[in-house]
Amino acid sequence: MRWVRFLVDGQEWEGQWVEGQIVTQSGPVFADSQVKWLPPVNPSKIIGLALNYRNHAAELGLEEPPEPALFFKPPSALIGHRQAIVYPTGASYCHYETEVAVVMGRRCRRIKANEALDYVRGYTIANDFTCRDFIRNTFRPPVRAKGFDTFCPLGPAIVSREMIDNPDNLEIVTRVNGTVRQTGNTRQLMMSIPEIIAYLASFMTLEPGDVILTGTPEGISPVEPGDVIVSEIEGLGALHNPVVAEGGGQ
Amino acid sequence: MRWVRFLVDGQEWEGQWVEGQIVTQSGPVFADSQVKWLPPVNPSKIIGLALNYRNHAAELGLEEPPEPALFFKPPSALIGHRQAIVYPTGASYCHYETEVAVVMGRRCRRIKANEALDYVRGYTIANDFTCRDFIRNTFRPPVRAKGFDTFCPLGPAIVSREMIDNPDNLEIVTRVNGTVRQTGNTRQLMMSIPEIIAYLASFMTLEPGDVILTGTPEGISPVEPGDVIVSEIEGLGALHNPVVAEGGGQ
Repeated sequence: MRWVRFLVDGQEWEGQWVEGQIVTQSGPVFADSQVKWLPPVNPSKIIGLALNYRNHAAELGLEEPPEPALFFKPPSALIGHRQAIVYPTGASYCHYETEVAVVMGRRCRRIKANEALDYVRGYTIANDFTCRDFIRNTFRPPVRAKGFDTFCPLGPAIVSREMIDNPDNLEIVTRVNGTVRQTGNTRQLMMSIPEIIAYLASFMTLEPGDVILTGTPEGISPVEPGDVIVSEIEGLGALHNPVVAEGGGQ
Repeated sequence: MRWVRFLVDGQEWEGQWVEGQIVTQSGPVFADSQVKWLPPVNPSKIIGLALNYRNHAAELGLEEPPEPALFFKPPSALIGHRQAIVYPTGASYCHYETEVAVVMGRRCRRIKANEALDYVRGYTIANDFTCRDFIRNTFRPPVRAKGFDTFCPLGPAIVSREMIDNPDNLEIVTRVNGTVRQTGNTRQLMMSIPEIIAYLASFMTLEPGDVILTGTPEGISPVEPGDVIVSEIEGLGALHNPVVAEGGGQ
């Protein structure tokens, strides 16, 4: 199953993405072009892992963290498929980060890694959009760098866990205006997806709908207003987001 | 008005704290001892400011941040008045941080500091409980240090904005087992409450119910299982929380 959420004429719907169409339980079928896509879930928290790919840490000139380097993104940063990322006025270096996003299905706390996937509803694609202008702060807390409105595109759909044989072996490709800029595979994750879930649940309760951004591989590069970012992950589809300038225009 | 949320026999209620009693709109009146207090609000995000008091930065041996040092606490960390803070097994230094918490009343983005308080519903007390064992991480992200379940006591009540003449002039006292351990006044805030709100809304939408922890003054010190922390703020009441060991017992 591929669950989606969307608006039609301002009304919120849930549905499934089936063979290139959106099918709703109550009957209506919509085309991609007829809907405004919403993030496929409304989480109580969005937890990110920084530097969870060795080659991405290397490209930033940073050491591999001895324990997971975590951050939160605010729910106010979420946007859906095809919605616009707003490039902040005055920023000089903003970049995409394509990542597998885990969507939790059941509440959990203090679980083992080998049972962690039992608590997962499914997977989707996240673009952990980041503005490096604001990253060198005291303690580098990425609240501002990663927390602007629209800085967390998510979707298009939650792909149910049963459809993904191994979340730790998925190809990742990011294209900007059709050109490949980033490639990787989740088998390069330093901390695997079950290990991440178990680590987080060692100290905090994960709620149904909570989203975990598992990290991005090497290949970040600047984007500008006018660009279109496509974040594609094997089995999860492709998340398209244009970049627009703050205050309209490009 | 002093708004509260609580459970009685597992049922959730909202009410007001009036002259030492909880009064509900539908009629029933409860005593403090009859209820299980909930956090007075269910926020979509909890934003904290680190090092917003000069003397607290000094006691930690840290420089004053050139711009606000922000962090998020997860909603899963919230507990209400009189509920127990769970001290993690193996931790060696956990401490209280009593803070004025701003509760937003209306959605806002891109507002001026001189209009910021118009968007506030009221104020309450937070204990930004922190485990220093986990603070020295890569980039010091305090996700784990400040994110454990129960690490965000909040309450007892939201005191409406109209009842607080000047949120930037409130006395703060923290007592542990009856002994004063921390004192301060919000007039010592490096960034005032209206400035904080305007800064946050410069990059992200603040939603009704969102909570802002405005920072703690000097005077942090370790607590242990068995201790009772009372976080008191002028005009906002007193937030009581016992500390218990993880896994029960003390």
